[in-house]
Amino acid sequence: MNDIIDPKVVSDPKVISDPKTDLLARTLAASLAGEHVADIVETLNDQDAETATAVLLALPFERAVEVLDQPEFTAAAAALALFPDERTSAFLGAMSADRVTDLIDEVDEPVRARLLRHLDSETHAAVIRLLSYPEHSAGSLMTTEFVSVPSDWTVAATLDHIRHVERSRETVYAIYVLDGVGGALLHAVPLRRLISGDPMAAIATLAPEHKPLTVTPEVDREDVARLISKYNLLAVPVVDAAGHVIGIVTVDDVIDAMIAETTEDVQKLGGMEALDEPYNQIGFLSMIRKRAGWLSVLLVGEMLTASAMQVYEAELEKAIVLALFIPLIMSSGGNSGSQATSLIIRALALREVSLRDWWRVALRELPTGLTLGAILGAIGIVRIVAWQKLGLYDYGPHWMLVAATIGATLVCIVTFGSLTGSMLPFVLKRLGFDPASASAPFVATLVDVTGLVIYFGVAAAILTGTLL
Amino acid sequence: MNDIIDPKVVSDPKVISDPKTDLLARTLAASLAGEHVADIVETLNDQDAETATAVLLALPFERAVEVLDQPEFTAAAAALALFPDERTSAFLGAMSADRVTDLIDEVDEPVRARLLRHLDSETHAAVIRLLSYPEHSAGSLMTTEFVSVPSDWTVAATLDHIRHVERSRETVYAIYVLDGVGGALLHAVPLRRLISGDPMAAIATLAPEHKPLTVTPEVDREDVARLISKYNLLAVPVVDAAGHVIGIVTVDDVIDAMIAETTEDVQKLGGMEALDEPYNQIGFLSMIRKRAGWLSVLLVGEMLTASAMQVYEAELEKAIVLALFIPLIMSSGGNSGSQATSLIIRALALREVSLRDWWRVALRELPTGLTLGAILGAIGIVRIVAWQKLGLYDYGPHWMLVAATIGATLVCIVTFGSLTGSMLPFVLKRLGFDPASASAPFVATLVDVTGLVIYFGVAAAILTGTLL
Repeated sequence: MNDIIDPKVVSDPKVISDPKTDLLARTLAASLAGEHVADIVETLNDQDAETATAVLLALPFERAVEVLDQPEFTAAAAALALFPDERTSAFLGAMSADRVTDLIDEVDEPVRARLLRHLDSETHAAVIRLLSYPEHSAGSLMTTEFVSVPSDWTVAATLDHIRHVERSRETVYAIYVLDGVGGALLHAVPLRRLISGDPMAAIATLAPEHKPLTVTPEVDREDVARLISKYNLLAVPVVDAAGHVIGIVTVDDVIDAMIAETTEDVQKLGGMEALDEPYNQIGFLSMIRKRAGWLSVLLVGEMLTASAMQVYEAELEKAIVLALFIPLIMSSGGNSGSQATSLIIRALALREVSLRDWWRVALRELPTGLTLGAILGAIGIVRIVAWQKLGLYDYGPHWMLVAATIGATLVCIVTFGSLTGSMLPFVLKRLGFDPASASAPFVATLVDVTGLVIYFGVAAAILTGTLL
Repeated sequence: MNDIIDPKVVSDPKVISDPKTDLLARTLAASLAGEHVADIVETLNDQDAETATAVLLALPFERAVEVLDQPEFTAAAAALALFPDERTSAFLGAMSADRVTDLIDEVDEPVRARLLRHLDSETHAAVIRLLSYPEHSAGSLMTTEFVSVPSDWTVAATLDHIRHVERSRETVYAIYVLDGVGGALLHAVPLRRLISGDPMAAIATLAPEHKPLTVTPEVDREDVARLISKYNLLAVPVVDAAGHVIGIVTVDDVIDAMIAETTEDVQKLGGMEALDEPYNQIGFLSMIRKRAGWLSVLLVGEMLTASAMQVYEAELEKAIVLALFIPLIMSSGGNSGSQATSLIIRALALREVSLRDWWRVALRELPTGLTLGAILGAIGIVRIVAWQKLGLYDYGPHWMLVAATIGATLVCIVTFGSLTGSMLPFVLKRLGFDPASASAPFVATLVDVTGLVIYFGVAAAILTGTLL
């Protein structure tokens, strides 16, 4: 994202002075002021960074902060770099600490140092702490702006507090009740309970019976999403070892994380590294890097098929008819493997099966693969018999044996593909890799070499003495 | 899901009378009563339907309704069938109308008729209407339990209303302000604004400037999810043609829908029909049906490779060395196609590219494919030269021409694969299919036949006069 910042401008930040840009910015700002923040972001994303910055300066301050707080606003870092010094400080102070952290994480020096210099000491400390959490963890997703009150406060006092801080909190729909002495989290009270509660009652009396659900800052975003989705939460508190709330992850951050996670998984399933940027924004060289790696690895793996074929060259020369069916047989193995692997990747992601269920899955895929293989084998045999009988092609005097070879090979290879495809995600997960890396191309390559060995093995068993 | 209901029991519903089940149920109910509803559901899902039913009867009524309202609770339909008549009516009346609709949609006759009979007339009408919306539409996802008030109400009156209806509403965090006369939706006011608003002010004065975001009941769940995610909403109102709110879709329903949608897409990407049930619950025959269809179609498609090979049989007999590289070349085409197709499927889903961007994508994939092909071609040439020079295999006197053939073919086939793979999702979308059906196996099969033609075409150009 750094390439959106013009280093010339960054090194000498100043207000935009071009009168044409200025007029356009004022007009845009006036027409946008009443729009939904997501729509303002969409419009500004279509403008160049200078215009977007000028519009932000022309918007009411609070609206501009709202825009800057949206992760979808692509020119935020550029705008902060273009603002005059005093505005940069004001905006950084008003923005949410987690968004500021993301932006600082995004930019390179010297912009980074300049932004850090403009932070007040409290935000500076928060940003440094937030920067320390690993990517995709609850700590990196969380916001530090939440509502917490001591457990001896009344409902009325709590509501009054919410009224005062509402504007500066990302969500007020869950109130975290803390131990008056140690400050540890005791309860999470939904706002809806507060509204129907007795104003004079202690806030703790409204708490649900069960303990509040929490995560530690290291928890992966996938697990946070699972928790929020399972318990239908609007936010989940992130607590440190002492039980203090250090932030919350809200449902809209989780939705964004889920979408990013799905994008990553689909790209991995397609046999490539996950892109970090949208398809229409990533640079040519980054794109090549993300795709060439796996393609090359798979090509090198697939070279084993050439070696395997060399071993069977004598058989091929004797019975060239066997070569005709190589693509068909190998693709069937790959396709059945691809089905099984996608099924298991998803079942693992949804926790429908766990690592120790591998043998249960194997016991399931064995009869499934055999049945699917039998269906495909039957189709293969019908094809050869039909072509022979209809005179479309002559498979030679031993055509029935050729048909039997293809049929039997399909049964074996589809069974083998289903088993290999279903076990691969378990193996990857056990080894600490993302099961979604078990892409269709990866499985197909694994199955291809063995597929050739199976094919020529079956052919030898059936055709020796006749064709071979 | 019907197989979880024992027809014997269904036709003669009665209270569970086995004393052992009864004791277990009471013990379980006592220990579960204070737990989070999602945890009660998880525990009950591990029990048989009779025990789960007995536990529900032993739980406090409101808690039991909460459990029945969870889509994750698998024995809900069975429990409703097992309850004595008067309890069935009470539970159905207290449950949310959209959940009742889903359950009635799930069961077959005669349970369906029995459940419908137990509905009060108002719920009955709501259920019949909800049943009429297409699967995966906003109408089928929405709940009819939301908070709406006329626009001339004060903030205090609205808060008082919320206090009274809070327990029976799925969410109270958005209040829908209706036109006092026509009843059409005017504004959506977040609860947080209500809390900090002047109690005597009219509710309409707290409304945001922008018009409320709405969907019609036919809108697909993917588009609802996109709207909720873009605008960070907690719920979106579903309105009819006259602008009346007929229900709302809440963020937790959208999260469930997003997870289901991802599961469907991953399974389609794996080259199969989407399962309707979890991997560990689907029956053997359903599993075979979902997988055999695409496998058979792909096999029949792949049979064209056998036909193509027949055409080149004479060339193969003359230069059996060409056969060695068939798997390697075809898989490279398939792999590059699979990468491109996954990228574009996801970019289309995220609206990063739209249908009319197809030529932009093609212009992008052409140089990308050429570069990737050049990298793979170079690796292929290095392999052949290395094996030849190291004496690992003898590709004959014309080995340099063989290497050139493989290299040139890889460039052509990877370019062709990337272009085909990237265009297929556009074609499918244009024809009204789900672009996610452009699975890696589908693309590979498409590329395989053309790949053979390219291979033998390049071979003829380079090797005619020497090997051919």
